[in-house]
Amino acid sequence: MRPPGSPVVVALGGGHGLAASLSALRLMSDRITAIVTVADDGGSSGRLRDELDVLPPGDLRMALAALCDDSDWGRTWRDVLQHRFTSSGDLDQHAVGNLLIVTLWELLDDPVAGLDWVGRLLNARGRVLPMSSVPLRIEADIQTESGLRTIQGQSKVGSHPGRIEKLRLIPDDPPACHEAVEAIHTAEWVVLGPGSWFSSVLPHLLVPEISDALHRTRARRCVTLNLESDDIESEGLTATDHLQVLRNHAPDLRIDAVVADPTSVEDVSTLADVTAELGAKLLLRQVRRGDGTPRHDPLRLAAAYRDVFEGVIADVPDRAR
Amino acid sequence: MRPPGSPVVVALGGGHGLAASLSALRLMSDRITAIVTVADDGGSSGRLRDELDVLPPGDLRMALAALCDDSDWGRTWRDVLQHRFTSSGDLDQHAVGNLLIVTLWELLDDPVAGLDWVGRLLNARGRVLPMSSVPLRIEADIQTESGLRTIQGQSKVGSHPGRIEKLRLIPDDPPACHEAVEAIHTAEWVVLGPGSWFSSVLPHLLVPEISDALHRTRARRCVTLNLESDDIESEGLTATDHLQVLRNHAPDLRIDAVVADPTSVEDVSTLADVTAELGAKLLLRQVRRGDGTPRHDPLRLAAAYRDVFEGVIADVPDRAR
Repeated sequence: MRPPGSPVVVALGGGHGLAASLSALRLMSDRITAIVTVADDGGSSGRLRDELDVLPPGDLRMALAALCDDSDWGRTWRDVLQHRFTSSGDLDQHAVGNLLIVTLWELLDDPVAGLDWVGRLLNARGRVLPMSSVPLRIEADIQTESGLRTIQGQSKVGSHPGRIEKLRLIPDDPPACHEAVEAIHTAEWVVLGPGSWFSSVLPHLLVPEISDALHRTRARRCVTLNLESDDIESEGLTATDHLQVLRNHAPDLRIDAVVADPTSVEDVSTLADVTAELGAKLLLRQVRRGDGTPRHDPLRLAAAYRDVFEGVIADVPDRAR
Repeated sequence: MRPPGSPVVVALGGGHGLAASLSALRLMSDRITAIVTVADDGGSSGRLRDELDVLPPGDLRMALAALCDDSDWGRTWRDVLQHRFTSSGDLDQHAVGNLLIVTLWELLDDPVAGLDWVGRLLNARGRVLPMSSVPLRIEADIQTESGLRTIQGQSKVGSHPGRIEKLRLIPDDPPACHEAVEAIHTAEWVVLGPGSWFSSVLPHLLVPEISDALHRTRARRCVTLNLESDDIESEGLTATDHLQVLRNHAPDLRIDAVVADPTSVEDVSTLADVTAELGAKLLLRQVRRGDGTPRHDPLRLAAAYRDVFEGVIADVPDRAR
């Protein structure tokens, strides 16, 4: 049963950040579409990509797991999906859900149909789609102590010290997943982030049809900032820097709302100014868990999204200053 | 919904033989329990056994697949279970259902609960149980051209030339699966075979509690003979020899019915005599497919089982002679 007024939401990102967003969104909508970066080349996904020439399934799996039905059935199959083998042999660290997704792709020869079957298995509260129908590689120009270097591969880019100056996809004009483009066009709200800014969030703006849809959709756009810049790729970037980087990559993208946790904002006043320049409203509120970990609390983030979507945050930026 | 008068059936065996029996039984009962040999040490199962120290899942997977619901849902998940990766890498030839079963075992730490979850996934028309709760090894004394040799391991025993004189399990007193023992006691019919006689069918008689239950149950017992002795382990054995081997391993086991395809019986008269000596009735009828392959036709075998279970084969042995 759909909650009354359940908003039609598209969430874009990848990895743990997208999963955190979905874990919140599922509490206030059952009309969710997740659109997932497919540039991962590390771990179980990287091995499957190399061995079987498929889309990297890991971030898709995590998004599906986050949307699983809240029942014994849904939780059990989520646990199966998320299970990793531990051994001294061939299967070590493979996530079972990755193998299951790849199997459905091999059987059905259709990435979207395969993901929909896993969604049905989980009774998922939404749909999970890849941003592109082909596996992608990330390439970045990184300013290091020894000068500008070009680094290839999401895992290397994500862990290379230095400041990322320019981000590219290979191929540079990848085909978008049609269903993803359509979902963006028919959404009421689009949520970007949280997540690894360069390797999970910004890549969506580098797929031409996805970027075009994000610019043209009549949906409103919400950016959810990270809790900590604890990943190497965004080391030294403030919350405001994250917004600036986004603006540099998509100067014409209208942003309607920004969600941030006050403890993750170095300078509230600057962030409020930049948010205002973008024409967006800022919701500054505790969305972090209470246990000291830099992770979003699903219920707090759900409440934040609800307030953003219902437009009840008009005065927040001023009060926050 | 249960078909009216659906008999309570336990089918024992392993591999393709058991799957053939289940594919027939599912057409005339929805109260089926499959009890499966767990001595496999080859292929995907053997690798999983070695790498993760688990029961070999392959024959259990095949039995579950044979019982899948006849719907788009059931068939899709059956196809997922039966899918094998093909690559030049680590996953090559692993069956996905084996990985799924092992995952549930690792998560639930209970072989029966894990198999029941896969059964639920398939909407299976019955239950699949291991004969023992621990992985077993088969050891055989084989009379070869160069004398009596002791061979260990199901795959080696199954492919070693020579006549199997004596079959043992390691450990020699393995714990039975309790649910399997109970199912035998509460069955109306127990079906042994078809299947690799030494490595899939007879091992059930070597697990003390399973053998005891087979001897003491008030269920009637049906032996289904193989269509071809095309496996090396039973090379040169006639249909009658198969019955004799069974009798040698369990002299006190009462047999009520024997099902055989006339084209697989070298000497009908001898088979009828031995069947009669056992106190059993012989149903000699085409149960083979019409395409020339040595495989059982599910519907013909289902009709044979129905007639056996309803006791309408009284006169067949005489007519066959």
